[in-house]
Amino acid sequence: MRAAVLHPDLSVTTESRRSPDPEPGDVTVAVRAVGVCGSDTHYFRHGRIGEFVVREPLVLGHEAAGVVVAVGEGVDPGRVGERVSIEPQRPDPTTAESRRGDYHLCPHMRFYATPPVDGAFAEFVTIGADFAHPVPPEVSDEAAALFEPLSVGIAAMRKAEASVGGSVLIAGAGPIGLMVAQVARASGLARIVVSEPDAQRRSRALEFGATTVIEPGTGSEPVDAFVDASGVAGAVRDGLARVRPGGRVVLVGMGADSMELPVSLIQNRELVLTGVFRYANTWPTALALVRTGAVDLDAMVTARFGLDQLADALDSDRTPGTIKAVVYPSLSRYQPGPGADTAPNETEGTLR
Amino acid sequence: MRAAVLHPDLSVTTESRRSPDPEPGDVTVAVRAVGVCGSDTHYFRHGRIGEFVVREPLVLGHEAAGVVVAVGEGVDPGRVGERVSIEPQRPDPTTAESRRGDYHLCPHMRFYATPPVDGAFAEFVTIGADFAHPVPPEVSDEAAALFEPLSVGIAAMRKAEASVGGSVLIAGAGPIGLMVAQVARASGLARIVVSEPDAQRRSRALEFGATTVIEPGTGSEPVDAFVDASGVAGAVRDGLARVRPGGRVVLVGMGADSMELPVSLIQNRELVLTGVFRYANTWPTALALVRTGAVDLDAMVTARFGLDQLADALDSDRTPGTIKAVVYPSLSRYQPGPGADTAPNETEGTLR
Amino acid sequence: MRAAVLHPDLSVTTESRRSPDPEPGDVTVAVRAVGVCGSDTHYFRHGRIGEFVVREPLVLGHEAAGVVVAVGEGVDPGRVGERVSIEPQRPDPTTAESRRGDYHLCPHMRFYATPPVDGAFAEFVTIGADFAHPVPPEVSDEAAALFEPLSVGIAAMRKAEASVGGSVLIAGAGPIGLMVAQVARASGLARIVVSEPDAQRRSRALEFGATTVIEPGTGSEPVDAFVDASGVAGAVRDGLARVRPGGRVVLVGMGADSMELPVSLIQNRELVLTGVFRYANTWPTALALVRTGAVDLDAMVTARFGLDQLADALDSDRTPGTIKAVVYPSLSRYQPGPGADTAPNETEGTLR
Amino acid sequence: MRAAVLHPDLSVTTESRRSPDPEPGDVTVAVRAVGVCGSDTHYFRHGRIGEFVVREPLVLGHEAAGVVVAVGEGVDPGRVGERVSIEPQRPDPTTAESRRGDYHLCPHMRFYATPPVDGAFAEFVTIGADFAHPVPPEVSDEAAALFEPLSVGIAAMRKAEASVGGSVLIAGAGPIGLMVAQVARASGLARIVVSEPDAQRRSRALEFGATTVIEPGTGSEPVDAFVDASGVAGAVRDGLARVRPGGRVVLVGMGADSMELPVSLIQNRELVLTGVFRYANTWPTALALVRTGAVDLDAMVTARFGLDQLADALDSDRTPGTIKAVVYPSLSRYQPGPGADTAPNETEGTLR
Repeated sequence: MRAAVLHPDLSVTTESRRSPDPEPGDVTVAVRAVGVCGSDTHYFRHGRIGEFVVREPLVLGHEAAGVVVAVGEGVDPGRVGERVSIEPQRPDPTTAESRRGDYHLCPHMRFYATPPVDGAFAEFVTIGADFAHPVPPEVSDEAAALFEPLSVGIAAMRKAEASVGGSVLIAGAGPIGLMVAQVARASGLARIVVSEPDAQRRSRALEFGATTVIEPGTGSEPVDAFVDASGVAGAVRDGLARVRPGGRVVLVGMGADSMELPVSLIQNRELVLTGVFRYANTWPTALALVRTGAVDLDAMVTARFGLDQLADALDSDRTPGTIKAVVYPSLSRYQPGPGADTAPNETEGTLR
Repeated sequence: MRAAVLHPDLSVTTESRRSPDPEPGDVTVAVRAVGVCGSDTHYFRHGRIGEFVVREPLVLGHEAAGVVVAVGEGVDPGRVGERVSIEPQRPDPTTAESRRGDYHLCPHMRFYATPPVDGAFAEFVTIGADFAHPVPPEVSDEAAALFEPLSVGIAAMRKAEASVGGSVLIAGAGPIGLMVAQVARASGLARIVVSEPDAQRRSRALEFGATTVIEPGTGSEPVDAFVDASGVAGAVRDGLARVRPGGRVVLVGMGADSMELPVSLIQNRELVLTGVFRYANTWPTALALVRTGAVDLDAMVTARFGLDQLADALDSDRTPGTIKAVVYPSLSRYQPGPGADTAPNETEGTLR
Repeated sequence: MRAAVLHPDLSVTTESRRSPDPEPGDVTVAVRAVGVCGSDTHYFRHGRIGEFVVREPLVLGHEAAGVVVAVGEGVDPGRVGERVSIEPQRPDPTTAESRRGDYHLCPHMRFYATPPVDGAFAEFVTIGADFAHPVPPEVSDEAAALFEPLSVGIAAMRKAEASVGGSVLIAGAGPIGLMVAQVARASGLARIVVSEPDAQRRSRALEFGATTVIEPGTGSEPVDAFVDASGVAGAVRDGLARVRPGGRVVLVGMGADSMELPVSLIQNRELVLTGVFRYANTWPTALALVRTGAVDLDAMVTARFGLDQLADALDSDRTPGTIKAVVYPSLSRYQPGPGADTAPNETEGTLR
Repeated sequence: MRAAVLHPDLSVTTESRRSPDPEPGDVTVAVRAVGVCGSDTHYFRHGRIGEFVVREPLVLGHEAAGVVVAVGEGVDPGRVGERVSIEPQRPDPTTAESRRGDYHLCPHMRFYATPPVDGAFAEFVTIGADFAHPVPPEVSDEAAALFEPLSVGIAAMRKAEASVGGSVLIAGAGPIGLMVAQVARASGLARIVVSEPDAQRRSRALEFGATTVIEPGTGSEPVDAFVDASGVAGAVRDGLARVRPGGRVVLVGMGADSMELPVSLIQNRELVLTGVFRYANTWPTALALVRTGAVDLDAMVTARFGLDQLADALDSDRTPGTIKAVVYPSLSRYQPGPGADTAPNETEGTLR
């Protein structure tokens, strides 16, 4: 199969590799669409995220959808042909964390595109059968790929514990901030404030769920919860100051390892602060939200690439107006067809 | 002032009474609109609900909105003139229940229209200032009155703990069932199944949030939660059998004091069953839901009456197609004006 | 190996059987001690529990401890020789229930001694490696076997949500009631009331955690939670009436499939009623409680039997004063040694 | 009456003042015993705590017990003569915070010994009748006074959410750390690790609930929860690193307004961090714990003073071995009687 590989010298090449064999309990998926995440771009530019360092060639990509083409031992062969959205984690089900439902915190986790585990910018991948979630025909390949970042938004709003009629402040209108805003809207929050320095992104936030957009540092009414999707220390401190007594703070954006935080404010208002690393049990929710139209993932895709264009895809966050880039691993180069403003389930372009 | 009074012999008369004086901390409200609740009708027909018996003349009505006309000691006089939705409970804030936030379970509760406490089918009422919730101009008097049954729906959905993307089965498409369905829709539930024997009510449920309607006993996919708004033992047993392991059952409808319940099913699936009696801390949520248009209360009003027409109002549930009747205590008889399909905030009709 | 088998005609025989082979991920355990549960006795007397019917010969017993003697594929061979307490469930880790931490509610569960799955009244059993929990030397074989009924007590008290300084009413002072009482005591509840008709059992309850014992139907102060360990409808109704507004009711005792319950009371006090079927994530808690001495399991063993004495063991609940009988599957007949008032880890008796 | 007053120049004098009159709903309490809190000492030494500044003469002291001597309007006169423990807060019951059970976060709170609200180092104080909690004869005056710091420990352990059989790390073995340790022990935690630099305090921690004591920075096994009772940034960072994935961090110690915190650790392990400011609904728990002997408050009193000795009392934290100093406002100078190693309920000493 062909796979796009990031090397320790930060070069990216397309290579031929042996297709992976499914382990017992796995399925093999022919990958159709893969979203580009900020963490992919970060590995591409810096060769590491925190303690995870690209020491060996690595396949990036963890927002993926495709079609089951083979099954491992113990898996129903009837699943071959099924369109699936991939939950890119392989926890060990026997750890204390997995057994209590926090499988995303499993210390033996193998997660796509996290050294040394390869990801999905490749023609084929394998995953546990129960982590390959079937999607119905009305969900596009691209939307199915974006169940992954949507899951981050779902996990963040679960931890925010803001409920119907309530309010949330979201810092940052990048892809994750917009996912959080969409989930907040779907959950019936009455006031969804997005704080973002960029005017274009602010206006976009209004399309994806924000009821109000503000420039950082402005605005004042207390909110039930604050979700940081910026990773910026100043935004976190601003946001904390806006939460009502007993409210919640959820840190999603990755920034510095360490931040100066107003602990006396946290104490005096008994705020509850936590973070989102990954997610558990979000795919059924993601499917329900997309299927009912409560969340629109297709509208978030603003750029498309083939496998040989991965470096461009990883850099596409530099193009103004980009929200989400999607890579088609079965194509060398993506070429829009006649009706290309919305991506078809049957992918088009230059076949290799 | 004038008040409509239910007598122990179940007759209803309009009488002149001394207007109530506000206690310290109270406001006096000139009542503009009062919804008719099934419990009002039950008192009217049976003279009792459980242990509460109409032994002395009683003013019914507990779904009320109006305008503040006077304030008691310690209350900001600036509130005179404010339009308010009345939360019709007077808990004792010093009890253990109130102190832990369950003020609706306060054993010293005085609740409107519950013997011997008078309710709101009268020109004036008093209530604790913090139980008279300001409403903005865009919320009609009728909608403000119906914050009360909406609060029952909010309380039920809180206890159902079904969240965005989830599912609920609601038994009964009467006013409370429709309120629950509206709150479920506002909360982003993906599957809202309403079970109801009456075909007209089933089609109405689809307008108020149901995604599917079924005849009792049909249908089969498991749901996250079941809310009974019927009070019918058979419906409760049917509903219980439809809840997924670990799911929730919320009994809202009032029926028999005692029911045969499938305890082995509750045990084997570890279902969590509870009931809604009243509600706490729901008015801010109700306001947010109505203001954003997530819940439509105006569309639920299907009949209007003046104070002298109270007996008719209490019997209006017998008119096919009735959802909610509203009484205007300042009018003897309600007469629709030229644009009477939606009720004006300035009430019209026969002035006494 | 030798195993004691219950036949559909309700006879019990000791037979030679092929020892079970460990599946991948399993360990094989040489069984040292097995507690007799009321459900074992129920199968012995009635041949069924609800929908589970003994249609083929069945090995009973699900409260077991022993020593690892072999490991399946993928399991650390270093575990051979480890003393373990067996959590007798085999859930499918890929179901929605398992993934969210409720593995005990997994619809594909295989549970010891539940037709057609054999249990532990046998020389050897297999179980998933992570369901064979290591125990330190200071925990006896008998105590390790009784982690299972202790887990029921732990699960019940978790659902009771009564916390330090709080109160609970427990109906029934059989083995499960005593387990609940012990966990309540360990959790720092200040008032632990046990209701029990039998005077001898009442006095025993005082040794195992009760602060007060009462005859059924007496007593009156409200409690935070009620745990039924009797399965008797009258006891459930009595208990429900004793719970404070907003309190919890946990049904653990198995009785009739269906019960007449006071739903208006549940509604008016907004009680929360649920049941315990099995348990999840309780073994680490059980170990901590036994190791620190907060719970005493050894003192609950009042009778001991060999494998050929299983019928007597299953009938031992008829002997006054019996709390828990323990069967030693490696012995034909249990014979107390010189220091036999406490059971040794090295089991004694008639070797076959 | 006589009261000890802290002046803006940080001098302390004993003065004659008019006894306070009870507001409606209040009781007047003759103060018998008042604990000295670190915050009292902080005001004494620095004249401020954060934004709260001593600009006018202030009576310190908020850990108080005494006897009801008068009642305000609306309070049962039968309460005169009752021994009470004072919960030193006056929230406004009508705020959103109070109504949802978080009355301690009420923005209109009046709290003893917080400028400009006077405290309890005086012969008489007033408090809301439901904040004067009756205590039975077996609870000493000193213990009743210390329900207040015990409440901080209860609030901290509630937020720690560590349950029976679980584990906690507590940083700091001052009075609050010891209270937390005692509540942890009463709650059945199996592993209670106290980190403290001072050897004498470490050995004392073992008496008050610790199962293990360590020097800061040592030790390694993960815990379910970490409670900081030190206010030291390094201790907070050390503690955070010891919490298991998904565990809880509760900041109780007051230190710098702002701290550098490892946000990536909080995110990667999805830790939940919060703080304790005050407490709500803790007095019934405190009483239960003291009454049953699960918590020992009497043993924490290591020094006693009369009202004229307040400056010495406020400085007593400098005496090695001091845990808690208690002031007797009815005495000018405290003089131990013959059996003075335990304080009598009938206070002795120099009467003025």
